[in-house]
Amino acid sequence: MPRYMPMPASAGLLALETPCLLLDEQRLRANVARMKVHLAGLGVAFRPHLKTAKSLEVARIAMTSAAGPATVSTLREAEYFAAGGVRDMIYAVGIAPAKLARVSAIRATGADLAVILDSIEQAEAVAAHAASSGDAIPVLIEVDADGHRSGVAPTDAAALVAIGERLASGGATLRGVLLHAGDSYALNDPAAIAEAAEAERISAVTAASALRSAGLPCPVVSVGATPTARYARDLTGVTEVRAGVFMFGDLYQAGVGSVTMDDLALSVLATVIGHQKAKGWIIVDAGWMALSRDRSTAKQALDQGYGVVCDLAGKPYPDLIVTDANQEHGIVGLRKGSHAALPDLPIGSRVRILTNHACATGAQYDRYQVLDREGGVSAVWPRINGW
Amino acid sequence: MPRYMPMPASAGLLALETPCLLLDEQRLRANVARMKVHLAGLGVAFRPHLKTAKSLEVARIAMTSAAGPATVSTLREAEYFAAGGVRDMIYAVGIAPAKLARVSAIRATGADLAVILDSIEQAEAVAAHAASSGDAIPVLIEVDADGHRSGVAPTDAAALVAIGERLASGGATLRGVLLHAGDSYALNDPAAIAEAAEAERISAVTAASALRSAGLPCPVVSVGATPTARYARDLTGVTEVRAGVFMFGDLYQAGVGSVTMDDLALSVLATVIGHQKAKGWIIVDAGWMALSRDRSTAKQALDQGYGVVCDLAGKPYPDLIVTDANQEHGIVGLRKGSHAALPDLPIGSRVRILTNHACATGAQYDRYQVLDREGGVSAVWPRINGW
Repeated sequence: MPRYMPMPASAGLLALETPCLLLDEQRLRANVARMKVHLAGLGVAFRPHLKTAKSLEVARIAMTSAAGPATVSTLREAEYFAAGGVRDMIYAVGIAPAKLARVSAIRATGADLAVILDSIEQAEAVAAHAASSGDAIPVLIEVDADGHRSGVAPTDAAALVAIGERLASGGATLRGVLLHAGDSYALNDPAAIAEAAEAERISAVTAASALRSAGLPCPVVSVGATPTARYARDLTGVTEVRAGVFMFGDLYQAGVGSVTMDDLALSVLATVIGHQKAKGWIIVDAGWMALSRDRSTAKQALDQGYGVVCDLAGKPYPDLIVTDANQEHGIVGLRKGSHAALPDLPIGSRVRILTNHACATGAQYDRYQVLDREGGVSAVWPRINGW
Repeated sequence: MPRYMPMPASAGLLALETPCLLLDEQRLRANVARMKVHLAGLGVAFRPHLKTAKSLEVARIAMTSAAGPATVSTLREAEYFAAGGVRDMIYAVGIAPAKLARVSAIRATGADLAVILDSIEQAEAVAAHAASSGDAIPVLIEVDADGHRSGVAPTDAAALVAIGERLASGGATLRGVLLHAGDSYALNDPAAIAEAAEAERISAVTAASALRSAGLPCPVVSVGATPTARYARDLTGVTEVRAGVFMFGDLYQAGVGSVTMDDLALSVLATVIGHQKAKGWIIVDAGWMALSRDRSTAKQALDQGYGVVCDLAGKPYPDLIVTDANQEHGIVGLRKGSHAALPDLPIGSRVRILTNHACATGAQYDRYQVLDREGGVSAVWPRINGW
């Protein structure tokens, strides 16, 4: 008997090249269904963020209809999803003037693609583009929910109205306001996240009121982040919610409490390629290139290293994590202080690794190996990357 | 006059979509020439590691000949470079038994692709594959230079000889030993790095002697890491050196001292998309997706955040770094405690960002925009990713 694991001719996960990206379709569908029910109960539309999945097949599961609505983080996503029939998108990163021609080219294919901005300078650029091109690009004004990143302060009515008026007078379409409660990622208590969601709602409603009081239109009031979407209790005045990473979940969101460990739909399949027995190390062929460089759980109560190591059924081995990573090597070992036994994983054994951040891990791959209910691979779904 | 920067019809860097990856060809060539002269002076062959560049155009600059030799980190790289005419490669990640058929398929196209391993189990798998396929795959035994990752201890002659004998008796080709002084990345003093290089050399020679004393062949003695390759003073007994990231350099290697800030050949072109003036923030359209999640300089004396922000000529603005990053947003600000002035960078302005880790940043892109001596874009070189 050889002491390594020989390769069966065809045996589901054992037949795949490693490292590769596994997507549990049942968990994905359950995560999406739960979010849709929750948001429908709150009376708001759902505009899933496709920046995590970047896949038309996943988008069609996540969206309310094959035409959208949806949110994208790059114009390459917008082009890809527009080509796939999505007709209602927001490009939710502040627009650069030089990107407006590309936005109009996408819109010319029939997709209603809106942009966001938070300055008079950008409003001037969009207005000038609308005047010269005849394309009345729809615009949402980005409002700063919590000091996390970009946006006009929700209480700065003068700035909001000045931007809105510049857009409206310049021939662009003022469609509303958009917020992202990014600071909710640092929380881990449902009550605190619900408070962050309420703060996001109040900021949104405040900004929308400022525009409407000045006689400006504000049909769309868009909020969203996976934690606040999950724990929002009341969304009065909000018209739609965006969220993306919840579809797959990841160790970071499990640390926040937005998802549970049993919701995680994404994992990396890896093969054991060595041991350093004296150190308690198992070496696998998934390093940071396969897992991503994301170490965001290092800031949380439970540091998961570069990932949690599971058997082929997706069940975590007790205390077994990727303690360190080189480009193509993952170093697997027990958590510091653990009294668990190191599992017997000979050369050639396969493991599944849950990772810190689904958006970052996904971006290292050009496809998903889709798992069915029996743990076999039922499909390969392509995904895109880049800009 | 609009207060944003309008887009010129064609103006070199101003005509590119952002974010994108810039490669300074002159710096690349100078970095390669310096390494070649250094290693030729030490009397060893150079086997560049192509895991950073993953580009045939860059490989042809780095390699001694269009046929190699070269080092790769994935079998996808091996396939790509074999298709491009590279005929001498080592796949420098411990071989998994299930990958041997793919190795033989690449070898069948005419490329002399060698593998590495550090266990009897792997040697058995390679021997069994050689017997059944008739392909006498060349093998280097991985030797542990410094406890960094994988490899047989250099003083464990019994294990080295047992693996060597299993390979030789099983019909594989024992080609030599391979080491990687990965712990040298944690150093920052040329004298200490030179000592690490000497320790790597002694380990290599010790392991090679153990094989030869047992009557086994060991024609190749391969060492390498960018820091030790740069500062090695004597490589007696070594036949070849591998190094990869030195070609481009990065902020981390500048912190180690393997390269200088003036050697850095890779940067990310980004556009200003917002400001949070009260906080001193400039928002750019290069977040961690464009820069990579790598924060390795956080462990060094000078933490560079997610990158150093430069003007279009590549000159760093004083104390200006990417202090934080979201997926598609970089938050640019002054280092903590800096008294420098925040530069005036209106919406639409473009900057270049030097990043922590060239291997990680490069992997986010499918092409290089190649800069010529005048700072214009002279070519686009494709690159590959994935496995």
